[in-house]
Amino acid sequence: MDRQTLTDALAQDRAERHHFEGLEYVRLTEAVGGHPRGSVVLPGGAVIRGYPSIGRIHSLASGLRQQFQEPFWAEEKIDGYNVRVVFHEGRAYAFSRGGFVCAFSTDRLPDLLPPGVFEREPDLVLCTEIAGPDNPYLEGSPPFVTEDVQLFVFDMMRRGQPGFLPQNEKMRLIEELHLPATRIFGRFLPTDAAALRDLIRQLDGDGAEGLVLKAEFGDTRSKYVTGRSNIVDIGVCSAQLLDLPPEYFTNRLMRMAMFVHEHGQQEDPDLERSLGRAFLSGLERAVAGSRTHGRVDHRYRCRFREHRNALHFIAHMAATGGQRVHILPDMPREEGGYWVLEFERVFDRMTGTLATAFSGATQFD
Amino acid sequence: MDRQTLTDALAQDRAERHHFEGLEYVRLTEAVGGHPRGSVVLPGGAVIRGYPSIGRIHSLASGLRQQFQEPFWAEEKIDGYNVRVVFHEGRAYAFSRGGFVCAFSTDRLPDLLPPGVFEREPDLVLCTEIAGPDNPYLEGSPPFVTEDVQLFVFDMMRRGQPGFLPQNEKMRLIEELHLPATRIFGRFLPTDAAALRDLIRQLDGDGAEGLVLKAEFGDTRSKYVTGRSNIVDIGVCSAQLLDLPPEYFTNRLMRMAMFVHEHGQQEDPDLERSLGRAFLSGLERAVAGSRTHGRVDHRYRCRFREHRNALHFIAHMAATGGQRVHILPDMPREEGGYWVLEFERVFDRMTGTLATAFSGATQFD
Repeated sequence: MDRQTLTDALAQDRAERHHFEGLEYVRLTEAVGGHPRGSVVLPGGAVIRGYPSIGRIHSLASGLRQQFQEPFWAEEKIDGYNVRVVFHEGRAYAFSRGGFVCAFSTDRLPDLLPPGVFEREPDLVLCTEIAGPDNPYLEGSPPFVTEDVQLFVFDMMRRGQPGFLPQNEKMRLIEELHLPATRIFGRFLPTDAAALRDLIRQLDGDGAEGLVLKAEFGDTRSKYVTGRSNIVDIGVCSAQLLDLPPEYFTNRLMRMAMFVHEHGQQEDPDLERSLGRAFLSGLERAVAGSRTHGRVDHRYRCRFREHRNALHFIAHMAATGGQRVHILPDMPREEGGYWVLEFERVFDRMTGTLATAFSGATQFD
Repeated sequence: MDRQTLTDALAQDRAERHHFEGLEYVRLTEAVGGHPRGSVVLPGGAVIRGYPSIGRIHSLASGLRQQFQEPFWAEEKIDGYNVRVVFHEGRAYAFSRGGFVCAFSTDRLPDLLPPGVFEREPDLVLCTEIAGPDNPYLEGSPPFVTEDVQLFVFDMMRRGQPGFLPQNEKMRLIEELHLPATRIFGRFLPTDAAALRDLIRQLDGDGAEGLVLKAEFGDTRSKYVTGRSNIVDIGVCSAQLLDLPPEYFTNRLMRMAMFVHEHGQQEDPDLERSLGRAFLSGLERAVAGSRTHGRVDHRYRCRFREHRNALHFIAHMAATGGQRVHILPDMPREEGGYWVLEFERVFDRMTGTLATAFSGATQFD
């Protein structure tokens, strides 16, 4: 990005200057010069493009033919958070969807990626999902990551070049560089709805989140999630029922209903019970929190290699955390060669509503 | 209400003039001179007070003692719509909560009330709930009204006098005038939480909606609903998931969770399944509607004694119906000495969202 465009974007509040230790960078808070929001401009002007939103299809039957005119690849969609990993002046950085350096992810890169990747491919941008129970952002994690976090590469870009690398080049680099990657289920045609139907039912049974479908050439992508993933999300988040946008829940209920219809799962008692339990178990956690210690919250735990990165992360939470975050006392705490950080997010509306209700006060609705 | 207050209220858009056949009346769209919104001013200035909102308690343990310092009566809360029935110049009228004459309820009063009530008590205002499957407003109805509609008196006022009649006078008039009334379960003290707990559990099992608790003297009232009533409401309305305010669902889920906690019903598999089924069965109705005839709707049916009242009702729907209403062809239709009216409400957001999703288009969220 040329200097004038960047200067104008900063002046117009379409971009913000940040730094992470010695790295000075700019993140785009709005689209600028063809680069989407979330893009990052490194010193010298190289742009790391923001990762685009991927549209969702709700029906395999109609969605495949509508979205794809050519072969596409089906890959696993993983329930984590998206970071772009970039090499700059001898060091790898992980940038969040919004374009911030993520101090946690950056700290853990030596654990999550094999050595030597960027020495061989310094201009590679790895688009990855980080998932697992000990992550500082999400309550849920996939069943196959049972501790700490793991990283899964699912797309690649090259710095300063538009678009994603073609599928075959990505697959070659994953193999050559020994990169951890999302599962790739194969190449399909828009007429392969039956095969994809079998695949998504298999994933539904395994507790996977769903599929991302990627055109073999070009950047066309769609996602399609399992019915059960909606129930999992509701179960994880129903303790925050009043603190999340209501669309969080209504969107998942709609997706669930369309999945049930398309896959003939109507009146399945196990599914019905799972959905009811997803709401009631999370709400019971909230009610129990309110009754036992007067607030509804969730405890997060993650660990850092470097003490100073834990402090960077805490500073970032303090600067950006819309939700109330409480770092637990004596954190970060050394444990097994890492610095463990535990903190709580308090769900204010749940806390207030339940406190009022159990006080015996009346509510009007 | 004096003429000047009324004139000012009309000029300030705090009141609206309406008529129903020969009756000219004013309804208050905001509070005016101590009279709440929904109050009605009859020719000559007599005011029929709006029926007040009743606050809800979520915990018997704390709510009773917080709300009541003196004996109170427990009555059944019925899942219907509220009308105030009033006598004016030889004719009975039913006014809706908002202060409109309800053409349907007014038409059916001779079926719903015994004769001679207002001849004996011309200034009586009956506060009633009308409920049943053949009502034009609500999808749901109580299990004990299996056809058409029934009316249940639950409070009384006297025209031009403030407040409700005391419980003993109301009970005496119900008996003397042979009025159909809500079930009255008895007189309780604020310390009777255990007895009310047994009562609400009984009602929960019977499929009743809940209780209204009324101070023996004065206008203090609170409501407390069964856990199951929340599931029933969700089951009735989940086909309208995106067309109702999200609070419709989140409020009921919160109430459900508090009921489950207070009554020790955690992890009840039957309850979990009922809740899941409530969401999924309604959503399946919506999806099936979208797939079979391209829209999500609900069909209402009600019957009138007088043809002209059906036309008044249709005109009122056309004038006020925020939701799209389609009167079916050849309605009203004569049947068994009545004029049957069938109409449909179309749920626009559900219709549009499902049509887009099943078209194969992608959605971004």
